[in-house]
Amino acid sequence: MTYPTVGVVGAGQLARMMAAPAIALGVRLRVLARDPTDSAAQVIPDTVIGKHTDLDTLRAFAAGCDVLTFDHEHVPTEHLRTLLAEGVTLHPGPAALEHAQDKLLMRARLTQAGIPVPRWRAVADAAELAAFGAQVGWPVVLKTPRGGYDGKGVLVVHNLDDARDWLSHHETLLAEERVDFHRELAALVARSPHGQAVAYPVVQTVQVDGVCNEVIAPAQMSDAHAVSAAEVALAIAAELGVVGVLAVEMFDTADGVLVNELAMRPHNCGHWSIEAAITSQFENHLRAVLNLPLGDPRMLAPHAVMANVFGGDHPDMYRAYLHVMARDPGLHVHMYGKTVRPGRKLGHVTVLGADVDALRERAGHAAGYLRGTIGE
Amino acid sequence: MTYPTVGVVGAGQLARMMAAPAIALGVRLRVLARDPTDSAAQVIPDTVIGKHTDLDTLRAFAAGCDVLTFDHEHVPTEHLRTLLAEGVTLHPGPAALEHAQDKLLMRARLTQAGIPVPRWRAVADAAELAAFGAQVGWPVVLKTPRGGYDGKGVLVVHNLDDARDWLSHHETLLAEERVDFHRELAALVARSPHGQAVAYPVVQTVQVDGVCNEVIAPAQMSDAHAVSAAEVALAIAAELGVVGVLAVEMFDTADGVLVNELAMRPHNCGHWSIEAAITSQFENHLRAVLNLPLGDPRMLAPHAVMANVFGGDHPDMYRAYLHVMARDPGLHVHMYGKTVRPGRKLGHVTVLGADVDALRERAGHAAGYLRGTIGE
Repeated sequence: MTYPTVGVVGAGQLARMMAAPAIALGVRLRVLARDPTDSAAQVIPDTVIGKHTDLDTLRAFAAGCDVLTFDHEHVPTEHLRTLLAEGVTLHPGPAALEHAQDKLLMRARLTQAGIPVPRWRAVADAAELAAFGAQVGWPVVLKTPRGGYDGKGVLVVHNLDDARDWLSHHETLLAEERVDFHRELAALVARSPHGQAVAYPVVQTVQVDGVCNEVIAPAQMSDAHAVSAAEVALAIAAELGVVGVLAVEMFDTADGVLVNELAMRPHNCGHWSIEAAITSQFENHLRAVLNLPLGDPRMLAPHAVMANVFGGDHPDMYRAYLHVMARDPGLHVHMYGKTVRPGRKLGHVTVLGADVDALRERAGHAAGYLRGTIGE
Repeated sequence: MTYPTVGVVGAGQLARMMAAPAIALGVRLRVLARDPTDSAAQVIPDTVIGKHTDLDTLRAFAAGCDVLTFDHEHVPTEHLRTLLAEGVTLHPGPAALEHAQDKLLMRARLTQAGIPVPRWRAVADAAELAAFGAQVGWPVVLKTPRGGYDGKGVLVVHNLDDARDWLSHHETLLAEERVDFHRELAALVARSPHGQAVAYPVVQTVQVDGVCNEVIAPAQMSDAHAVSAAEVALAIAAELGVVGVLAVEMFDTADGVLVNELAMRPHNCGHWSIEAAITSQFENHLRAVLNLPLGDPRMLAPHAVMANVFGGDHPDMYRAYLHVMARDPGLHVHMYGKTVRPGRKLGHVTVLGADVDALRERAGHAAGYLRGTIGE
C-alpha cells in the first residue's frame, strides 16, 4: 500500500471533518489529541494522546506520518521550526503559519505586501495607545497578538482607562482602528506546495458577540467585488507560501475590503462546502498538503447557508433530530461529539437552495431548535 | 450523551461508507469484521473481530448497540431469528432479510404479491428443468438460492447437459427464463420502521460479465416509466417490511420492468448519491434503521455517473491520483482500502453534470486509468 498518512495536530471538529474525505481517498489520518474524548479522537482509529506543546511528543507523532498538518494554531512556532529542520514535512510550514499565530507579525507582513488592512500599530504602553487613539480616533480595538479566537483576546477600548488592565498584563498589544464596516466577508482558498490554488466563492459571515453564527454562500455582491476579495486571499496565500486551506476574514467597507484575521486550516466559514461545493474545504486541505491536484471549489446550488449550533440548557440534542429532520428533509446536520455546555459550538447545519431568505430561515430554525431556544 | 450506537455486521466498503454520515450525525458505529484489515475496520475505531456466522459472537456484538444492521446478507437467518427473540433490534429484520438471502423465497413472495418477475420455478432434478425449459424456452438461467453475488451463483444453461454438474451439487436450484431485456435498471428506496419511505431516482446499471461497471443516474426514461419502476421498489419494501435501504435490480423490457435481484442495504447502484443526492443512501440507511425522519433523495445535478474501479496489474493506485485529479477537478474518488487483485472491486469514481456522454467518458477514463488499462 502506498497510500500516505496525514498527521493532524489537534483533534477538534476540523480534524473530525477531515475523516470523511480521508476515508474516500484511502488516505490514513492520524490525530494528536489531548484527550480520548476529543471530537476527532472519537472517530479516527489512529489517535495518539499527547500535548501539542511538547517537542518530543510532536517528534514521536510525526514519525510514520508523510506530512503534518493542523487542527489549530497553538503549536509553538519554535517546535515547528525544529521539526522542519529535522526533516518533517509540515503544511503549512512555520514561515507561513506564524502569521496565523501572531497578529502583529501578520499585520506587519500584510502591510509590507500592500494588502489592505485596518490602520494598526503595536502598543507597549499608555502613551503609545494614546498617540494611536489620537491618530485614528476612539474607540480603538486592542488584540492580544497570540491565542485569541472566537471573540477572545479582543477588547474595544474607548479611552486609556478601559485599556489599563490589558496594558499592565501584556508586554505588547496590537491596536487597530475600529473599522466602519457594513458586513463581514470571508475568502477561502486552498494552495498546494507547487503553487496551484483554488478560491471558493466569497461568503458573508454573520457574527454575534464576536462569534460566527451564520455563513451565507456566496455573499451577495458584484462579481468584480467578489473577485477582488478572492484575489486578496490568493495574494496572501502566495505571499506567505501557505500550503493547505487559508481562510481570510475581512471587513467589507465603502472603500473595499480590509483583512481582519487569517486561519491556515479548514475554517468555520467553509463548512458549507461539505455539501454545497463540488470539492469540500476538508478534501482540498488534504489534497493540498499531500501535493495532489486540487478539486473544483464551485458550488452545486445557487446558495447555501450554514448556521452554527451552540449549546443550550438541555443536554440531549439527538432527540431534537426528530423535529428538525422531519421539518426539513434537505437539512444537513453535523454534530461534533462534544459535551453540551451553554454557548459552546457543538455542531452546524447546512441547507442548499435558490432563495437566501428561505435558507436562512431553515438553517436558523434548525440551529435554534437543536439548541433549545425554539420550540420544545 | 444520548447518541445511539449502530452495529454493522460486516466491515466491507458499505460499512466503510456509512462512516461519513455517522460522523456527521454524531451516531456511533460499531462494526463486526472478520479481520482488522477489512475495509471498514481500517477507519472505524469501534471494530470487533469475529465471525458473523457464530451466534455467541453476534450476541456479544449486539450488546451495547441500539440497533444492528448489515453490510452483507450472509448472517444465518436462524441466528437473526434468535437475536430478535432475545430482544435485539435488527433492521432489516429476518422476516424481510430472508428474501434477500434466499432467491427462491424471494421469487415466491414477489409472485404472490403480484410484483412482476421473470418466469421461474424451483428445480430439483433434470426432469423438472427439462419441463421448465420446454415451457419458457432455452437457454434457462440457473441460480443458487443462497450465496450468489456479482455474477457468482448464476449459470446460463442451453440444455440439460450444461446443468448436470449444478443439479448434482445442489438440492434445489432456481430456474428462470432468460429475459430479453434491453438494459438493466435499479430502483433504490429507504424505508423507516413506521413506514416512511423515500425513492431515489431510478438508475441504469451497466454490467460487464455479470458485474456492475457503471451507473447512470437518473436512467434516461419517461417519467411514467421511472415512476412505475420506483413504485415496484416501494411496493416490495412495504410488502416485505424492509427497514433501511432496499435496492431492486430490474430488467427493462418491452413490456415493462421485471425484478431481478434484491439487496437490503446500501448498494453499488446508489454510490452516486454520496455526492449527487441531497441525502446519500448511506445517511438514509442510518436514519431509517435509527427511526429518524428520512432525508431528501433528490439529485443536486441533472446527471451523475459512477464507475467502479477494479484491480489491474499494478498495485499502486495512489500514484494514478495525480493524473486523474489533474485531468478532472470535479472527479470524486472513493477507494476502499483493499489490496489490489486483478478484477477485484477496489473503489469507485463519481462525476456530476449535465451531459451524460461527457460524464461517462470522464468516469470511464478515471476508472480505467486507476486500474491501469488506460495510459502509462
